[in-house]
Amino acid sequence: MSGVDILGYVAGLLTAFTFLPQVIKTWKTKSAKDVALAMFVIAFTNQILWLAFGVLREDPVIIITNAVMLCMTGLMISLKLKYNHK
Amino acid sequence: MSGVDILGYVAGLLTAFTFLPQVIKTWKTKSAKDVALAMFVIAFTNQILWLAFGVLREDPVIIITNAVMLCMTGLMISLKLKYNHK
Repeated sequence: MSGVDILGYVAGLLTAFTFLPQVIKTWKTKSAKDVALAMFVIAFTNQILWLAFGVLREDPVIIITNAVMLCMTGLMISLKLKYNHK
Repeated sequence: MSGVDILGYVAGLLTAFTFLPQVIKTWKTKSAKDVALAMFVIAFTNQILWLAFGVLREDPVIIITNAVMLCMTGLMISLKLKYNHK
């Protein structure tokens, strides 16, 4: 594995957890008024495309990264809808 | 260009504009209390890694996608810091 590959893996891993702080914050504060729903809807659509791309390319890093993100984005969309007006 | 490549380009393009709705919302409402700063700090770090990866791989899609995202994330971090308590 080259240095470039390692950089890709680190970036991929970090990407998977981008939305985690937002999920934790909204979960704790039960407030999501300032959060843009469209951001997570775009991200969700996008992760489905990336997941399809990963499956077609048979690339486990893309598959795992986007499966994790898809779960977090789905959770964040439900939190946003639940706590939108609080 | 294969169908898989096209899927990758579409996903890449869509990724670039993920944070745009949040930037517009925060810009308009001048309120960012519910937005997690850590999410954008992780994204910013991540985009620098992806940008480096894109440059090393000489991949224009990765470079352009992440350059656009880096600008939006930087803007969102400054909006969050400015409007945090409003």
